Amino acid sequence: MIPRYSRPEMVNIWSPETKFRIWFEIEAHACDAQAELGVIPTESAAAVWKAKDVEFDVARIDEIEAVTRHDVIAFLTHLAEIIGNDKARFVHQGMTSSDVLDTTFNVQLVRASDLLLADIDALLAALERRAMEHKFTIRMGRSHGIHAEPTTMGLTFARFYAEMKRNRDRLTAARAEIATGAISGAVGTFANIDPFVEAHVCAQMDLQPEPISTQVIPRDRHAMFFATLGVIASSIENIAIEIRHMQRTEVLEAEEFFSKGQKGSSAMPHKRNPVLTENLTGLARLVRMAVIPAMENVALWHERDISHSSVERMIGPDATVTLDFALARLTNVIDKLVVYPDNMIANMNKFRGLIHSQRVLLALTQAGVSRENSYTLVQRNAMKVWEKGCDFLEELLADDDVLAALGEENIRSKFDLDYHTKHVETIFARVFDGK
Amino acid sequence: MIPRYSRPEMVNIWSPETKFRIWFEIEAHACDAQAELGVIPTESAAAVWKAKDVEFDVARIDEIEAVTRHDVIAFLTHLAEIIGNDKARFVHQGMTSSDVLDTTFNVQLVRASDLLLADIDALLAALERRAMEHKFTIRMGRSHGIHAEPTTMGLTFARFYAEMKRNRDRLTAARAEIATGAISGAVGTFANIDPFVEAHVCAQMDLQPEPISTQVIPRDRHAMFFATLGVIASSIENIAIEIRHMQRTEVLEAEEFFSKGQKGSSAMPHKRNPVLTENLTGLARLVRMAVIPAMENVALWHERDISHSSVERMIGPDATVTLDFALARLTNVIDKLVVYPDNMIANMNKFRGLIHSQRVLLALTQAGVSRENSYTLVQRNAMKVWEKGCDFLEELLADDDVLAALGEENIRSKFDLDYHTKHVETIFARVFDGK
Amino acid sequence: MIPRYSRPEMVNIWSPETKFRIWFEIEAHACDAQAELGVIPTESAAAVWKAKDVEFDVARIDEIEAVTRHDVIAFLTHLAEIIGNDKARFVHQGMTSSDVLDTTFNVQLVRASDLLLADIDALLAALERRAMEHKFTIRMGRSHGIHAEPTTMGLTFARFYAEMKRNRDRLTAARAEIATGAISGAVGTFANIDPFVEAHVCAQMDLQPEPISTQVIPRDRHAMFFATLGVIASSIENIAIEIRHMQRTEVLEAEEFFSKGQKGSSAMPHKRNPVLTENLTGLARLVRMAVIPAMENVALWHERDISHSSVERMIGPDATVTLDFALARLTNVIDKLVVYPDNMIANMNKFRGLIHSQRVLLALTQAGVSRENSYTLVQRNAMKVWEKGCDFLEELLADDDVLAALGEENIRSKFDLDYHTKHVETIFARVFDGK
Amino acid sequence: MIPRYSRPEMVNIWSPETKFRIWFEIEAHACDAQAELGVIPTESAAAVWKAKDVEFDVARIDEIEAVTRHDVIAFLTHLAEIIGNDKARFVHQGMTSSDVLDTTFNVQLVRASDLLLADIDALLAALERRAMEHKFTIRMGRSHGIHAEPTTMGLTFARFYAEMKRNRDRLTAARAEIATGAISGAVGTFANIDPFVEAHVCAQMDLQPEPISTQVIPRDRHAMFFATLGVIASSIENIAIEIRHMQRTEVLEAEEFFSKGQKGSSAMPHKRNPVLTENLTGLARLVRMAVIPAMENVALWHERDISHSSVERMIGPDATVTLDFALARLTNVIDKLVVYPDNMIANMNKFRGLIHSQRVLLALTQAGVSRENSYTLVQRNAMKVWEKGCDFLEELLADDDVLAALGEENIRSKFDLDYHTKHVETIFARVFDGK
Repeated sequence: MIPRYSRPEMVNIWSPETKFRIWFEIEAHACDAQAELGVIPTESAAAVWKAKDVEFDVARIDEIEAVTRHDVIAFLTHLAEIIGNDKARFVHQGMTSSDVLDTTFNVQLVRASDLLLADIDALLAALERRAMEHKFTIRMGRSHGIHAEPTTMGLTFARFYAEMKRNRDRLTAARAEIATGAISGAVGTFANIDPFVEAHVCAQMDLQPEPISTQVIPRDRHAMFFATLGVIASSIENIAIEIRHMQRTEVLEAEEFFSKGQKGSSAMPHKRNPVLTENLTGLARLVRMAVIPAMENVALWHERDISHSSVERMIGPDATVTLDFALARLTNVIDKLVVYPDNMIANMNKFRGLIHSQRVLLALTQAGVSRENSYTLVQRNAMKVWEKGCDFLEELLADDDVLAALGEENIRSKFDLDYHTKHVETIFARVFDGK
Repeated sequence: MIPRYSRPEMVNIWSPETKFRIWFEIEAHACDAQAELGVIPTESAAAVWKAKDVEFDVARIDEIEAVTRHDVIAFLTHLAEIIGNDKARFVHQGMTSSDVLDTTFNVQLVRASDLLLADIDALLAALERRAMEHKFTIRMGRSHGIHAEPTTMGLTFARFYAEMKRNRDRLTAARAEIATGAISGAVGTFANIDPFVEAHVCAQMDLQPEPISTQVIPRDRHAMFFATLGVIASSIENIAIEIRHMQRTEVLEAEEFFSKGQKGSSAMPHKRNPVLTENLTGLARLVRMAVIPAMENVALWHERDISHSSVERMIGPDATVTLDFALARLTNVIDKLVVYPDNMIANMNKFRGLIHSQRVLLALTQAGVSRENSYTLVQRNAMKVWEKGCDFLEELLADDDVLAALGEENIRSKFDLDYHTKHVETIFARVFDGK
Repeated sequence: MIPRYSRPEMVNIWSPETKFRIWFEIEAHACDAQAELGVIPTESAAAVWKAKDVEFDVARIDEIEAVTRHDVIAFLTHLAEIIGNDKARFVHQGMTSSDVLDTTFNVQLVRASDLLLADIDALLAALERRAMEHKFTIRMGRSHGIHAEPTTMGLTFARFYAEMKRNRDRLTAARAEIATGAISGAVGTFANIDPFVEAHVCAQMDLQPEPISTQVIPRDRHAMFFATLGVIASSIENIAIEIRHMQRTEVLEAEEFFSKGQKGSSAMPHKRNPVLTENLTGLARLVRMAVIPAMENVALWHERDISHSSVERMIGPDATVTLDFALARLTNVIDKLVVYPDNMIANMNKFRGLIHSQRVLLALTQAGVSRENSYTLVQRNAMKVWEKGCDFLEELLADDDVLAALGEENIRSKFDLDYHTKHVETIFARVFDGK
Repeated sequence: MIPRYSRPEMVNIWSPETKFRIWFEIEAHACDAQAELGVIPTESAAAVWKAKDVEFDVARIDEIEAVTRHDVIAFLTHLAEIIGNDKARFVHQGMTSSDVLDTTFNVQLVRASDLLLADIDALLAALERRAMEHKFTIRMGRSHGIHAEPTTMGLTFARFYAEMKRNRDRLTAARAEIATGAISGAVGTFANIDPFVEAHVCAQMDLQPEPISTQVIPRDRHAMFFATLGVIASSIENIAIEIRHMQRTEVLEAEEFFSKGQKGSSAMPHKRNPVLTENLTGLARLVRMAVIPAMENVALWHERDISHSSVERMIGPDATVTLDFALARLTNVIDKLVVYPDNMIANMNKFRGLIHSQRVLLALTQAGVSRENSYTLVQRNAMKVWEKGCDFLEELLADDDVLAALGEENIRSKFDLDYHTKHVETIFARVFDGK
């Protein structure tokens, strides 16, 4: 997590202040439940809430931790300083540090998920708007980077929309994966704490009780969560790469918005670099790098070891903050992307009419010419366009065999671009209707 | 995919024979639809089905491909050899190779998923059986590899059950991700083929039509699929590591079943190596290594490039075959795992009674002793056990301060193991009821 | 490892036949050393060599292993079938299976390295030849996919040469990493076998004795080896991506050689797809995926566990076979790459003269105009070219301020392409001289 | 990079202050060279050095960047504020931002390497000291977590020493990989800047000139660098796992030093958790996660794109800071590791004498008993020890067949531990002599 690629709301989720606040809430709710069970005095539970609006002194907690080398004990010690040792001694009773740490981590991940879901919604809105805008903006479809057949810019936006819609669903599932809490004590047996406490705390924190925990919440959940972030990041890369290609000097079918003050190469107007999408390509790699460590975290020893902890301290904030930033940046890029329909047409006409060769080939086959002969007929005219730069339609009309097989009108009809867009509405309906 | 770690049914899914069979089915169903639309003659569509029971000649297809360097064309040429050039010329009309290749890959992944789901079901059954069997088999719970508090072997099996149950749900979701087909032509516009063909083929092949495809089915789906396999593999590693720990010479709470003929170190009866679970640890790494390449595959150029293809030719079979083998091997290990309850008790008693120190501490706190003082009281007795090997209960009973604070009966009650198992039924109900 | 991406010589290294042959050699050399030490009878050692030219029966060994579940014992049993139980009983004395397995694996990796080094040499030769051929073939240099300043095609080949030269050095180092053998017995103490045996076997097999082994050769060596393959693969990807960009329809500065029989889109001459380099992009991902598992293999438990074994059975062959194939394919691509110098010039002139704006800017600064003013002067003329498609040189000559600052001759000189190539010889000397 | 796992000296290398200081030095040295070439006035070059001892105002630079969106221009603007616009206009002449950024990044990586090399040296010293101390401290060697044959604790330390020694060599090589600088202008052609400037700057900054750069220094160098850090991290994990195993309750052959104030489970003296080495296991994953992104960074588009930049802003500091911290922590762990030789002996005797079965087996074979019969003889006695807990030596002496074959003295000699340590000196000499 570095400031350059961070947004405050997500950063906030991972601040010490937020963390201690969640710790406090968990401990306080647990006390309420313990009091209800009669395990601890009601007054003590009530007293804990005195710290509700107190800002915890992070520096003080760090100071205590430097001695105790145990973060939860350090926090509890500080809490006792606030509410009094007398009341504080019932706090955390029957619990283990992991009860607090793991439940907190999941609360943070849930909140991060909510921000990310909102990010995706904003991106979806931008993609949909641009898809509608360019529904029939003709451009070349390309396979292998080579002109294939026409498509529309709207279809490009639409497929990114569909992909991000899937990512939204995946993230919703991933959010559910980690929306669990556990207050099950030392090795997860509830020996020292009643399951009621867990149920109460989870209900208050909007979590589901983890059906079976050890000292920790099982890490396959987190592996799935971070894997999902990795998939979303890969989709961001997918969109970014498309835009980078479109902005290439030789293609120039679109450009990232270039703000006024922005320098770089202002004396070279052709030199508007797709730096945002290049940056997104890199950010995707960063989010993705959390995936394998998260999976390596699954196999903890027996009821827990702490090897996952350092990994999560890093990838928890890093992956969510970076993804949040990347989604917002991408939304901005999509929103303001400058699209050049004229260049799309110009690119399409680079080899005069040649992109229609496939249709002519198909027409010949349908007209009863064998596949091999059809190839030959198309090929001999195509090669002239390729080598001499002449016009494909003109060549075909001048080719007696082709003319005989298809007739002029039929040949001309194969150069009609509407042919390629006739199912755009169908596809749009699939993608956007009843979404 | 290597024979040593392969099972025939899964290997079969990836054989050339199976692949060509699926190709054939897709082409034949597409012809039916095209005939229904009146695009191709009904007789031609019917004629294609003549190849229904013909075994395709893989060597012959390879031979043709060696010349054409295009696998689908090679297949179609071979098909024409079977059904006659005359009828064959309507096959594949309006389609692009990727329509066949991508839809086939997804059919294979769906079938692989079905085998894997069955594998998981078998594993779940084994885990459940062993969980029930050892529901109240007491063993030490360990955090950081260090004795913590008692738990039961049944809970260990139960948590693996819960984890694998989650994996089953994830795999079901992953299966849905890749259960789509696309017959959308060159760049996915349906310009040369009616969406009806796609709908028909998908219905016949038990797939959903891909709402919007380019020349390919979007690869975020496959990224998610392989990421899910990676998570499942990590859970296998998790279980394998637990068993490897249990089988350590110094722990010996369980052993992999050791067949009679099996050599290795038969003269060293203590030397029964957990080679199956060690192997599973390695296999988990192998499955996991498909995850990142699958994510790198998402960002194809424009409407497709073919960089994903070689990756999928490798990871498609490798990850599914390896995971299938690993799940079956793990099921076998769990099924036959030799559990040593006596050793579990013996291990627990290594430091005579010391594992109950936490309970005594808690009791002291509840009896009104300050947390600090409670620590001191417990600690001074614990240290004697630790250093001199005496018995913790006896020491506590001989400590006047402790005796004064708790009373003999109360102290003795803290050494009751039932205390730790009182919620086992609750947890089992959470895990196994209404599953 | 799949046939499609394999070459026989490398595949051979990993065949069962080769493996058993190496096993045999290690065992036989060990017997020689043991005989020399007087540990076993000389005749027995001599007798072992009777199997020197015998082809081992892989099926028979597999059959025995199916019972013993131990590959080395299966092999030794088969060896005994050949040379007689009587002589065979001294084979393998004092050794542990890993002595044979690990030393063999390293012999295979060394041989694989030698093939890969030869592959790189061939690639280097191709790159050097093409670099010399196009030393002064002018093309646009591009940053961010956007035209920057001119460079030459020769420099592009030269930088790939330099990169692959570094990879050659890295691979030489990686080869040394794994060119060790160990015959140190059970846990590496030489308790049951004299270090002389190790020294003798290693000398015969062209390996260095591992200074300190446990039951296994330490796996940090292999981690480094596979990491190096991953770097080489990434360089292949680097070159592949450059070619894919060059072959884009809109760029078309180079094309992969397109063989005569090759179909695909023969009727669309513009549709020559860079399928080889796209394939190389995918193969790079495949080689790279071995890196992390190889690193995860390092932390074996105590003196060894067998988790690394399954990983290496897969990545050993897969990564080397795939890399061998990829290097050879890339060499072929480079060798036959069709370069289009005319298109390079045409692309460069897309924005008539604008690429020289940087030089004009610099000239203005050097002529004493402030940086800000220089920008303004250049910018106002550049924008005309950009917006109206006029010629940059003409505009500058028509701009009184620019003319006043620089003079006509000076302005014209800024459009001289030789300016950009004046240090090409220097760079070539750095790269190719005394290599 | 998070404070908890950071040390100030390494953090410092990555501070904005350090970065701007290096930028300044590069620019200033470049001016010197340009002045020497007569390209810029000598006074201007001299004037730049006025900023030598000025502390750059990071906030001010950020402020400018917020407008210009270009970090190098922001810095140069700030520099101009210090030395005056008049002198400043010659700064950076002919250079491109990447000349500064890439050379700086490499200076930072070189400095980081130097710290890491010092870290490894400290670790090597600790490992050597402990190896010498425990050269003959007998402990069980274990394969598969199962007792195999005796070894010594010194050998364990020695093999970690040898492994880290290899890592030192690797890091030295990796340092050389990235110890290059480039001042080659826009696309690396030196069109706008003489190679002399690069030579001069590199000499001043202790770097080698990059033989051929584009706009950037080629990223295969950095891929190799980070891959090497990944290998080192994996070795750290290797050592950490060993210690975690040794500290297990049932094994307890060593413990991490437990400081006095440290809480956690002070009332449970058996509950000294190996939290440092568990932490190191996690940190290893974190360092390793930089490897793949660094490899993905290699394939930049044409002469550069900026996708690598965000990745390096993160992994540059993160991987080096984390590795520095981990090495220091590991050194501390090794230095203070509490070793329990008595427990090692006790563990070894768990199955009374059984670990010598291998030697007895060998003795029987050498005495002329067939391998099969030897197995049977050993096995029948071993099983008694295993099942009834009797003493292996006594059983063997009571077995007439064994006695007949070997004689009492010979049998007894097989239980001599010196047998296993007789080559310890040899191995130590290999590892430590002439190091």
